[in-house]
Amino acid sequence: MGAVTFLSDYGLTDDFVGVCHAVIARIAPETRILDLTHGVPRHDVRTGALTLARALPYAPAGVHLAVVDPGVGAERRAVAVRCREEDRLLVGPDNGLLMPAAVAFGGPLEAVDVSRSVHRLEPLAATFHGRDIFAPVAAHLSAGAPFAGAGDPFDVANLTPLILPTPVLGEGRIEAHALAVDSFGNVQLDVTHEHLAGSGLKLGHAVRVQGASAQFVRTFADVGPGELLLYEDAYRSLALAVNRGSAAERLALGLDDTVVLEPAT
Amino acid sequence: MGAVTFLSDYGLTDDFVGVCHAVIARIAPETRILDLTHGVPRHDVRTGALTLARALPYAPAGVHLAVVDPGVGAERRAVAVRCREEDRLLVGPDNGLLMPAAVAFGGPLEAVDVSRSVHRLEPLAATFHGRDIFAPVAAHLSAGAPFAGAGDPFDVANLTPLILPTPVLGEGRIEAHALAVDSFGNVQLDVTHEHLAGSGLKLGHAVRVQGASAQFVRTFADVGPGELLLYEDAYRSLALAVNRGSAAERLALGLDDTVVLEPAT
Amino acid sequence: MGAVTFLSDYGLTDDFVGVCHAVIARIAPETRILDLTHGVPRHDVRTGALTLARALPYAPAGVHLAVVDPGVGAERRAVAVRCREEDRLLVGPDNGLLMPAAVAFGGPLEAVDVSRSVHRLEPLAATFHGRDIFAPVAAHLSAGAPFAGAGDPFDVANLTPLILPTPVLGEGRIEAHALAVDSFGNVQLDVTHEHLAGSGLKLGHAVRVQGASAQFVRTFADVGPGELLLYEDAYRSLALAVNRGSAAERLALGLDDTVVLEPAT
Repeated sequence: MGAVTFLSDYGLTDDFVGVCHAVIARIAPETRILDLTHGVPRHDVRTGALTLARALPYAPAGVHLAVVDPGVGAERRAVAVRCREEDRLLVGPDNGLLMPAAVAFGGPLEAVDVSRSVHRLEPLAATFHGRDIFAPVAAHLSAGAPFAGAGDPFDVANLTPLILPTPVLGEGRIEAHALAVDSFGNVQLDVTHEHLAGSGLKLGHAVRVQGASAQFVRTFADVGPGELLLYEDAYRSLALAVNRGSAAERLALGLDDTVVLEPAT
Repeated sequence: MGAVTFLSDYGLTDDFVGVCHAVIARIAPETRILDLTHGVPRHDVRTGALTLARALPYAPAGVHLAVVDPGVGAERRAVAVRCREEDRLLVGPDNGLLMPAAVAFGGPLEAVDVSRSVHRLEPLAATFHGRDIFAPVAAHLSAGAPFAGAGDPFDVANLTPLILPTPVLGEGRIEAHALAVDSFGNVQLDVTHEHLAGSGLKLGHAVRVQGASAQFVRTFADVGPGELLLYEDAYRSLALAVNRGSAAERLALGLDDTVVLEPAT
Repeated sequence: MGAVTFLSDYGLTDDFVGVCHAVIARIAPETRILDLTHGVPRHDVRTGALTLARALPYAPAGVHLAVVDPGVGAERRAVAVRCREEDRLLVGPDNGLLMPAAVAFGGPLEAVDVSRSVHRLEPLAATFHGRDIFAPVAAHLSAGAPFAGAGDPFDVANLTPLILPTPVLGEGRIEAHALAVDSFGNVQLDVTHEHLAGSGLKLGHAVRVQGASAQFVRTFADVGPGELLLYEDAYRSLALAVNRGSAAERLALGLDDTVVLEPAT
């Protein structure tokens, strides 16, 4: 039994996700569907891309469907991508959403444009390619249809990249950025353990975050309720949290905002 | 492996949906459950009915469980309905919820009252027929139990109808109604392509909606962010949206409100 | 095919639940996952515990994974518990969450500390034991791994209990407590049918709830919209509701608040 993982910004209030499940189950009754999340903030391609890339290594190899698609019905390509490793197949819009996941599996090996795939449903709705293109393509691939037959091949060098911020590393100072914010207000930074050399930041010590006092600790329970902490999150990125509170709210942080980290003096 | 689709207004915050899944899995371990949505607005039978009818053609034939049931524990019947086409079986309260779906599959062929079904769980809770009547009836039907044995037969002419508004078609003018509003604020109207003859409304042209300016286009990306559009939605109804915004909020529209459409002069 | 039920306070906005599903599906591809709910209020161990205990009797026997874990990464044990009845296995943090469910199946028979389980994923994240400990332990148990091999055995007498309020029964008066509040504002009390003798409270009669007028009836539809009712809920506890409204809001009730019930004079 193959598996299709599914991530989107459709939310669960409407029937968008359910209808995509229905489409997949009709085409590939034996395929299991694993919902990664449908709570990606509406149209937030980058949060979708980062969430997908960090979740997929935990998922069985197979077909990975992802739809965060502000350009639905416009010019962007609809694509399927084969990764170099584990024969992972990614299906979704060509707007950068799939790229970090492709990189996590060795990079893209081949790609097809599925906008006019033989697998798509007719009539094609201009506003719901998840149902009419992406879900049926994913279902047919999961059921064993050949990759090359799903669309028109094109050079993987032409896949749309995803632009990400990079931290500025200084002496005793890191200018990081807010990469993602989860629903609890935890803020993932574009900094990992490897960036810390020379920064003076050390686990178990106090730090200054945007001038505010915080502790660099292992986990939430290492500080009191309401206190700010810097920690390595479950995907090995540095992150900010408030124990039983919201770091995003406390520091008024949104996506891409600069976050200055310094050792406390 | 049979499939039961499941739609309700239970939401996902509590365990109502999970307990119904559990009940089905106990009775019919091989049955797959496909959640269409559980985000139907609380007690909104009509939105549930329209959502069910438009989703089911995408789903595998089987048993279709739907629970939007403001009258639970009161006099309304609990029913199972066999459709004329594809041997589709509908299970839920007899309050109009199942009727558009029945019509989508040729209309009801036979019906049984399952209020005292042999399949129901005991003791029966007056407030949770989803768990104690509808889910077990759906599970047993999916596992192959005969339709006639699920309850007491009655004339399908006695099924409770669903009352829907109808548009008023004039020269150069349509008085439509807001049929449904999704969680993004897109407003589905009771108008389809077939109603447009004589209205002067044409794809690619400007229109007036409640006196406001809009464009009649194919998809969201055909107008600028924040602009109002009229478009054919993914289920072939005309609908209103604001690109990256909410048409319901912009026009202050709720269910059944009249929406006047006119060609822009 | 075995089944793992899954309850948590992770919510569905982020990918926490999806990643746990992915982990289980990798380890035990044939195991079915039944989500009971992931909408337990954040860190509310007691609501999680009561929800689990009342849902599980409806679920197939198997492995029951539950994660409401404010102390993740701190000293609390991670455990698996075998119940005396039906060979039910519970997996989660040792903070009282699993105890009412264990009691529902005859009480705990044996327990292992799985904090350093051979099944856990490495590297272990300090903040996501759901992914790295609980889900993999549940998956391996579901796939047939022996219970004793999942961790270090300890005396079930050392399992952390769950503290619950108890009602004060008087002549013509019950001092109850708000045990749980669902998303519709229905308030479950720590009172059942058995507590009513001597209270003067009778089905079909008027009652006073915190001094306010209410009816003791079977179901919502037995009172008018906006009216307060006392009823036996779907799990046989007495509960308060407002027909098409919120009892918690009407009476300003939160968890553990005292609720005085008296016959109307």
